[in-house]
Amino acid sequence: MSSLPLQPQVDLTHHLSSETRLRKANPMKAIWRLTRRKPDMISLANGDPHYSLYPIRKVSFEVASVGKGVQDPVASWRAGPSAPSQTFTSTTDSQGPLPLKRALQYSAGAGLPDAQRVVTELTNYYHSPPDHIATLTLGNGDGVAKCFRLLGEPGDNFLADEFSFSSLTNAPLSHGVNWVPVRIDQGGMIPEDLERIMSTWDESVRGRKPHVMYTVPCGQNPTGCTLNLERRRKIYELCQRFDIIIIEDDPYYYLQYDPIDEDEPVSPDTPFQLIPSFLSMDVDGRVLRVDSFSKIMAPGMRLGWITSSPLFHECLVTLTDASTHHPHAFGQMFLVEMLHSSGWELSGFDRWVRSLRAEYQRRRNYFLDLFHREVARTGFASANAPEAGMFVWIRVHIEKHPRFRHDLLALNEETESSGNTKVDLTAPRTNTEELMEELFEKCLDAGLVIMPASVFVAPDNKERKRMEDEVPIEDRLNYLRATFAGPEETMEPGLAILSSVLKEFFADKKPSRVELEAPSSQLVGDLSKQ
Amino acid sequence: MSSLPLQPQVDLTHHLSSETRLRKANPMKAIWRLTRRKPDMISLANGDPHYSLYPIRKVSFEVASVGKGVQDPVASWRAGPSAPSQTFTSTTDSQGPLPLKRALQYSAGAGLPDAQRVVTELTNYYHSPPDHIATLTLGNGDGVAKCFRLLGEPGDNFLADEFSFSSLTNAPLSHGVNWVPVRIDQGGMIPEDLERIMSTWDESVRGRKPHVMYTVPCGQNPTGCTLNLERRRKIYELCQRFDIIIIEDDPYYYLQYDPIDEDEPVSPDTPFQLIPSFLSMDVDGRVLRVDSFSKIMAPGMRLGWITSSPLFHECLVTLTDASTHHPHAFGQMFLVEMLHSSGWELSGFDRWVRSLRAEYQRRRNYFLDLFHREVARTGFASANAPEAGMFVWIRVHIEKHPRFRHDLLALNEETESSGNTKVDLTAPRTNTEELMEELFEKCLDAGLVIMPASVFVAPDNKERKRMEDEVPIEDRLNYLRATFAGPEETMEPGLAILSSVLKEFFADKKPSRVELEAPSSQLVGDLSKQ
Repeated sequence: MSSLPLQPQVDLTHHLSSETRLRKANPMKAIWRLTRRKPDMISLANGDPHYSLYPIRKVSFEVASVGKGVQDPVASWRAGPSAPSQTFTSTTDSQGPLPLKRALQYSAGAGLPDAQRVVTELTNYYHSPPDHIATLTLGNGDGVAKCFRLLGEPGDNFLADEFSFSSLTNAPLSHGVNWVPVRIDQGGMIPEDLERIMSTWDESVRGRKPHVMYTVPCGQNPTGCTLNLERRRKIYELCQRFDIIIIEDDPYYYLQYDPIDEDEPVSPDTPFQLIPSFLSMDVDGRVLRVDSFSKIMAPGMRLGWITSSPLFHECLVTLTDASTHHPHAFGQMFLVEMLHSSGWELSGFDRWVRSLRAEYQRRRNYFLDLFHREVARTGFASANAPEAGMFVWIRVHIEKHPRFRHDLLALNEETESSGNTKVDLTAPRTNTEELMEELFEKCLDAGLVIMPASVFVAPDNKERKRMEDEVPIEDRLNYLRATFAGPEETMEPGLAILSSVLKEFFADKKPSRVELEAPSSQLVGDLSKQ
Repeated sequence: MSSLPLQPQVDLTHHLSSETRLRKANPMKAIWRLTRRKPDMISLANGDPHYSLYPIRKVSFEVASVGKGVQDPVASWRAGPSAPSQTFTSTTDSQGPLPLKRALQYSAGAGLPDAQRVVTELTNYYHSPPDHIATLTLGNGDGVAKCFRLLGEPGDNFLADEFSFSSLTNAPLSHGVNWVPVRIDQGGMIPEDLERIMSTWDESVRGRKPHVMYTVPCGQNPTGCTLNLERRRKIYELCQRFDIIIIEDDPYYYLQYDPIDEDEPVSPDTPFQLIPSFLSMDVDGRVLRVDSFSKIMAPGMRLGWITSSPLFHECLVTLTDASTHHPHAFGQMFLVEMLHSSGWELSGFDRWVRSLRAEYQRRRNYFLDLFHREVARTGFASANAPEAGMFVWIRVHIEKHPRFRHDLLALNEETESSGNTKVDLTAPRTNTEELMEELFEKCLDAGLVIMPASVFVAPDNKERKRMEDEVPIEDRLNYLRATFAGPEETMEPGLAILSSVLKEFFADKKPSRVELEAPSSQLVGDLSKQ
């Protein structure tokens, strides 16, 4: 894997979608800029309500104390109402970082300059990106969807982890983007599979070569896996070699854990090195990093940011001006006050997220202990310890099921008129998909909701020909996604249900294998009734 | 103008864009729904952070008192820190309308059910729509852009007031929508012009017949005009007849004023009837009404809602799930608390907006008094009193300018090879555009920013052939948009500048008309240097 010589500025304009190229900047902006032509301009131009007519004069947020006096901010906070707190307050004319009269006015698509500044400082602290600018978003989903819109053209092929969070990968399908899955193992996306796809891509058969990759590098959703540094470097080099833009969606970045065998109690002061992001190595400007507060503050914040090259930043702002317009004031006020010297500051934020990672690591360990005791012991399922995020990817040993079949491929044999036998090598070889659906239904009947792997498979565009060298995903659906983010009191009963359902499911010896020699369509029909 | 027989349900599916039809619901939703299959389901399914891990335990908003004890809430509020206030507070577990633990979690694309309910009550109170549902948006711009995306197809023609707010009409151009301007006069969109356009539309020349109309019916931006009830009824009937969807963008609905000649002091208790909206008469489900809090609360709220038929609502939710995701918690908390019985309630909201309309009416009257004294007296400009909104549309009597020309059409004559003279009837007849640009530059030089009409002309798609029966918009650019929403202390000096610039501009007798017989391109060149 050789890397291209590093170039300080790579022209990546050709990655922009037609819509992005056609999009013109808001024509009012040129006029608004004129109000700064000289000092003391009088404006009769804008329909901005005067701040004296806002009915709000004070907004306060009571939040956790994270100062040095609080040893473990998250543990202390969870203790209840007696936990020490501090309050972020903005008033109309406050001397604080962001007076209401400014926050509540119309502002720029990239966000209020104050908010843009604090997220930039945060990004610089954790990633030190080469030459990048922040654009505020309305949360992770908005950020990712905007990246797709920025780059996605009808007929485009985008690369993604073969199992991905479908709420997000669903978005660009309607504007004509197809997903090309890249194989993953417990270490995340496999660089060699990426290289295989790109170097064997035949545009005459498969259409435009993939030019965008969407990936969750830490605590990947749903598999929980995290790319190690070596793979990140390889993947970045491959993206340089094949000219691919990376959408680095990293909501679990701060929730990185120690390996499970070093299971010592952690505290916010435990030394811990966060893994370098794609952004941190992005000399070309080919990374769009999407950050979110949903997992480390609260999902309802609906505020995040994209860090990108100046080119992509400009286009994202123009897209924002033509869609969502600027982000909301209340969230930006919270953010600016939180990171200001009168608030938590960056050091307090860092203490909070380190304390939070310790809390989630405790939960992960608790969950895995239960899992090994309740579920793994059955011999019908196993799981690796995730190094980040919120999810455990449970492998169901479906091959142990009495009704498991691995001979479906032969059933698909067709005899051509020439007398030769033709086998569709892209058809499933096993009945994994049907069995897993049956297991999922059994869990529901027993009162447990757990995510089946099938919902994380990006829907194939019907027109896209599947390659014969791809192992059919239907044969690899023997996984369930469970979370350890929820309340601990649900974990024990939840895993107990899973354990008993697995035992019952794998004990099933009816209908017998002899009866099963019926055509597979009938098999599916039978199962769907259960 | 005959109306079609009223139909309780009209199938309007054919108006949806290809993208909307292709868009699939978020595949996770089906799973999330399963958690409600039976009571006491245990979920290990979702990556929702537990509320005990949100670092926020209280959010409060100190707002104006609007109770009956406060006679004129806006006037009282503007008096300063001594004005009575009340506080909306949410805590993690509060008994109030929306505890933080619920508000700050992931929620539905249409908005939190509580927020959806309060805006529905508000809409029902003012509009009593026949059969419509609310979808929350991230403010007016987001709402309008989503309507465009819902309905707009590459090659589509959308109707709009011939002068429109370009920040919004700019949005769908990049996805291939063309604007077809409908003439307006001081009463707003002219129904007869709409009828002319639709009944003479030749699809073989102009492409797909317009099927969507975008309009601001109250205090139209930029012209300030308001459609009266008779025109609204006529336009709605025409939209039934020609099968047009109406996007009713109505941010100034609550800011409706008395006619200027009934200029008596108004108070919140002055009886006043708001004009019926298109939504209120929408028996077919062809109106998408976009509401906003920007002008009556604060622009930074970035929260509004669309009221539409159930069909369009479903599609808007799917679009939201694939783009912005659900709206932010802080704004929804504010909204729910404001309209709850522990907050302002609907009656208090009504008192606030009536008081606000009285305040803006005072500002409008103050502005117009100044305008007549300072500007109209010059004889070079005039203005009508707007019945709603924030804008005065100032007509510049450009025909009085010494360098005004109305003979440009003849200059464009071409002699064809046959010897016949060919005139491009769609070319400008006058030099209005150049003179207005000159005037705008003179205002800037004198320290005044005011909006020229030219920025409100939706950019023509180059491929669209202009019809010969359209009067070129270039000949009707002799308007300036001024606002009376800004601080009163800028109005007097601002209008004084306008007055002196107009006097100087109209006194200009150089270069003489003789010198001006140069080709018009050179004329523009000369002027642009000034």
